[in-house]
Amino acid sequence: MSADAPPTLPVALDAVGGDHGAAPNVEGAVAAARSGLSILLVGDRVRLHAELGRHPGSGRLPLEVIDTPDVIGMDEHASDVRGRPQASINVATRLVKEGRASAVVSMGHSGATMASSLLTLGRLKGVDRPAILTHLPSKTGMVTVLDVGANADVKAAYLAQWAQLASIYLQVLEGQERPTVGLLSIGEEDHKGNALTLEAHALLRQLKSINFHGNVEGRDIFQGTTDIVVTDGFTGNIVLKLAEGEAKVLFGWVRDALNSSLSTKLGGLLVRGALRGIADRLDPSTYGASILLGVRGLSFIGHGSADARAVKNALLRADRAYQTRLVERLSSELAATMMPTPVSQAHP
Amino acid sequence: MSADAPPTLPVALDAVGGDHGAAPNVEGAVAAARSGLSILLVGDRVRLHAELGRHPGSGRLPLEVIDTPDVIGMDEHASDVRGRPQASINVATRLVKEGRASAVVSMGHSGATMASSLLTLGRLKGVDRPAILTHLPSKTGMVTVLDVGANADVKAAYLAQWAQLASIYLQVLEGQERPTVGLLSIGEEDHKGNALTLEAHALLRQLKSINFHGNVEGRDIFQGTTDIVVTDGFTGNIVLKLAEGEAKVLFGWVRDALNSSLSTKLGGLLVRGALRGIADRLDPSTYGASILLGVRGLSFIGHGSADARAVKNALLRADRAYQTRLVERLSSELAATMMPTPVSQAHP
Repeated sequence: MSADAPPTLPVALDAVGGDHGAAPNVEGAVAAARSGLSILLVGDRVRLHAELGRHPGSGRLPLEVIDTPDVIGMDEHASDVRGRPQASINVATRLVKEGRASAVVSMGHSGATMASSLLTLGRLKGVDRPAILTHLPSKTGMVTVLDVGANADVKAAYLAQWAQLASIYLQVLEGQERPTVGLLSIGEEDHKGNALTLEAHALLRQLKSINFHGNVEGRDIFQGTTDIVVTDGFTGNIVLKLAEGEAKVLFGWVRDALNSSLSTKLGGLLVRGALRGIADRLDPSTYGASILLGVRGLSFIGHGSADARAVKNALLRADRAYQTRLVERLSSELAATMMPTPVSQAHP
Repeated sequence: MSADAPPTLPVALDAVGGDHGAAPNVEGAVAAARSGLSILLVGDRVRLHAELGRHPGSGRLPLEVIDTPDVIGMDEHASDVRGRPQASINVATRLVKEGRASAVVSMGHSGATMASSLLTLGRLKGVDRPAILTHLPSKTGMVTVLDVGANADVKAAYLAQWAQLASIYLQVLEGQERPTVGLLSIGEEDHKGNALTLEAHALLRQLKSINFHGNVEGRDIFQGTTDIVVTDGFTGNIVLKLAEGEAKVLFGWVRDALNSSLSTKLGGLLVRGALRGIADRLDPSTYGASILLGVRGLSFIGHGSADARAVKNALLRADRAYQTRLVERLSSELAATMMPTPVSQAHP
């Protein structure tokens, strides 16, 4: 740990959230704890201890259960967050707010996680709306896309803020210097797009703090034309789900093709290992969860269908974001961007 | 040909449009003509005859050159359509308007083709804005998506009109009875979406003439959850280009994987044939071109990068649309939908 590392804190996991309840959460937490990470398991004590019992030796790991019987189910309303302070997601998020946890991670109700983060942690100064940032595989490695679903209707100013947030994020967390930003549109030319992107394009052009490439198209996402692709949460959510859905269907077809005859089965044995590398590259559980960028604290939102590997990777990623002091960096760099003329210079 | 087949007419091809000029257009036209289709090649006579000279025996095929030296280049403005009546796309579209051609097909400037169709042919009654309809491969065969780029900013009423147009289109051209319609959104639940889709959802629910499934998500496109996916032209264009771009990148990775070692190369020989079937399914040239739905005539818009196979398939598809009297059916069925109470019934 470097000299300016923050004090050691556990990650808070909404340990009963998600389509498969406690099982993948606890299994992922146990795996992350084995690599040294401290974790607070927030959820119903009885269920969590039952799951922990399936993992021999988990009693000696840095895992602590925070007994919280209430949980917001996948089919309930996000607005329930307001009236149920003892729901697991609210308890987990408050641990971050109170400085008792480094980050909150949830594979549960996405809307509830967002609402809880927004209400409990609040927004960073200069951010109108937090955005969900995620990664997709690309020819160049990975491409960072936001917003993928927090905001269905947006203003051009939000896109400009998200471009700044994502640029700082990649610099701090991935060490990418001046990552390129593309605005998702329907033509490379500046004048192509809809009313929103035309306005956003003009704003992005003026931003000195980002490395704006210009418009990118749908095909540029997998080409990896830019490091960051910024878009509204409606389009971004469709992009994310289409990209994942297409990869799944295409690889199903490849699997079927390899099983279609005796000779393809034989050939399949020889190529399967090489193809598995592609499948891994496309696996959303590599990143584990997406970050809610723009709130005053670390909040990670995963797939409801997340498996133990996704939970583990999300917990490790959350801790890494904490170790790099991501939120402090976002806050200070945004403040610097917003004040091109500091007060001291205004009085020569 | 059935008893009520329309009079025989040639298809008009904007034969110099596209990234590769006359070559793929003429090659595709020759291939279509060999299967019996009559084609008017609209473009510069010298260039077209030079290309035809490369195809022995093409002089005996039902191909006629309409000499039109002017062409709207890929880097010119769509609005140039207005001031250049002798540009190839305008001449080709006028042949449809004047009843001398069954349809216009262009691999040239998409915006110019749309503008020319709209100005020359006009809109069908009950259609506010024409939409570009295309097909994507899916688990169930194919999924029909519109609008994929004609309208960047839309109103909810347009989406409702497009759902009707696409339903009639699939019924007439593909023989699909009551195809299902999905509204592309960010959640299956009725209340999820942006301002546009929420309003459109309510309109679509009320339409008796379509088989409305409800909202679909990005992942439903390749799943083939519905026969038709209706969306605005901004989102649809991104969906189309992402889907094509992702398929291209993933198959590049598969190709690389098969070439990565001696044993994968050997395995590759055994599986290549089976994998080629998937590549064919994903090849946009299977359909050749997208139809501009909602104008008073048949207009097909292809990729600028179209190859001869795409040109041939587009020409055959255009002729099939003409043989099925698609435009007349769209016109009469739209009129029936718009008038639930015919005048005769209003006076019992």
